Amino acid sequence: MRLRNIKEAETKIYESPYIIEDYKNYKGKFNELFNNNNPIHLEIGMGKGNFIINNAINNPDINYIGVEKYASVMIRALEKLEDKKIDNLKLICFDASTIEEVFDKEIETLYLNFSDPWPKTRHEKRRLTSDTFLKKYTSIFKNKNHIIMKTDNRKLFEYSVISFNEGKYNIVDLSLNLYEDNPLNNIPTEYEIKFSSKGFPIYKIEVTK
Amino acid sequence: MRLRNIKEAETKIYESPYIIEDYKNYKGKFNELFNNNNPIHLEIGMGKGNFIINNAINNPDINYIGVEKYASVMIRALEKLEDKKIDNLKLICFDASTIEEVFDKEIETLYLNFSDPWPKTRHEKRRLTSDTFLKKYTSIFKNKNHIIMKTDNRKLFEYSVISFNEGKYNIVDLSLNLYEDNPLNNIPTEYEIKFSSKGFPIYKIEVTK
Repeated sequence: MRLRNIKEAETKIYESPYIIEDYKNYKGKFNELFNNNNPIHLEIGMGKGNFIINNAINNPDINYIGVEKYASVMIRALEKLEDKKIDNLKLICFDASTIEEVFDKEIETLYLNFSDPWPKTRHEKRRLTSDTFLKKYTSIFKNKNHIIMKTDNRKLFEYSVISFNEGKYNIVDLSLNLYEDNPLNNIPTEYEIKFSSKGFPIYKIEVTK
Repeated sequence: MRLRNIKEAETKIYESPYIIEDYKNYKGKFNELFNNNNPIHLEIGMGKGNFIINNAINNPDINYIGVEKYASVMIRALEKLEDKKIDNLKLICFDASTIEEVFDKEIETLYLNFSDPWPKTRHEKRRLTSDTFLKKYTSIFKNKNHIIMKTDNRKLFEYSVISFNEGKYNIVDLSLNLYEDNPLNNIPTEYEIKFSSKGFPIYKIEVTK
């Protein structure tokens, strides 16, 4: 599925049965897409899909929705899915800055993996753990807000811990070196495999509200 | 000032003008010891004293009180003070588990540097950032609770971040690698100099409530 350009990727992805093109019609009723009432876990910024695809395979009783802004990246995830049939996985290509317009009281857990750190202060609002985004997330959760974040970016992680604390989130779990803790059930992203193998610490936090 | 045994240290320290032997008489009025109303900063577990002595020298308008449980350790700090006259520094030898009986609404800032991690779960209450201790601290602060903590112990730090968050503290500042951040005004402890020079990350958190 090699493509000549981004425009071609944008057309190509909609040939995949995993991609929901008319996602705007499912606000508040994404469970209909899965034909069951299992909990829905969402990953924003799923990249090449290793994390969400393997989660979906390992946990058939949980429905997974992956969001990725770039069609050119999403296409890499779709390549991995070409010979697979995973009923509990759906993917959407859109910019998460409108996340509150897409989901309504239906997400159980939100994953933020190796998100763009947006290091410049003037881009703070674009960070997926900024106050701006934490407010957007509030309406997407079915029960408690529940966010699990991993990153190798120290500055983004420090910022996020402070942001969750300011947002009155409870820190349920925290690791400042995930791989030293040998987590049995950790599913890595492509990026995570590369960076942890070089010995860089991977940070993880789980919060609820 | 080399001593043959711990008992000798316990007697010897009271010869120093820095040591307050009758500290129990000053509850709520430690400012009388300094003859001024400058803010009082407290370090629990001052060890060999590098941090608090240099803070006192650098900040003459702040009064410093150092607490250390072991006379045999305190004596090492007193050796550093033998040829110095620092009016804004006082030291007390006692176990901080009774901290709320010693101070009353008079501390501005509390420092916890490289505290004993007490790694076993059954010793959790002994950690200086446990819920047990956070409750004890509440009555010692004059204005807002204000705690600054440094450690190289990852597990203690993770525990402490969660504990401060549970205790409804606001995280004002956080560094997961203090020396990479090149802090201009950082005053290290003896232990910190050793561990940071080996390249281990030093963790720091500042909280208020």
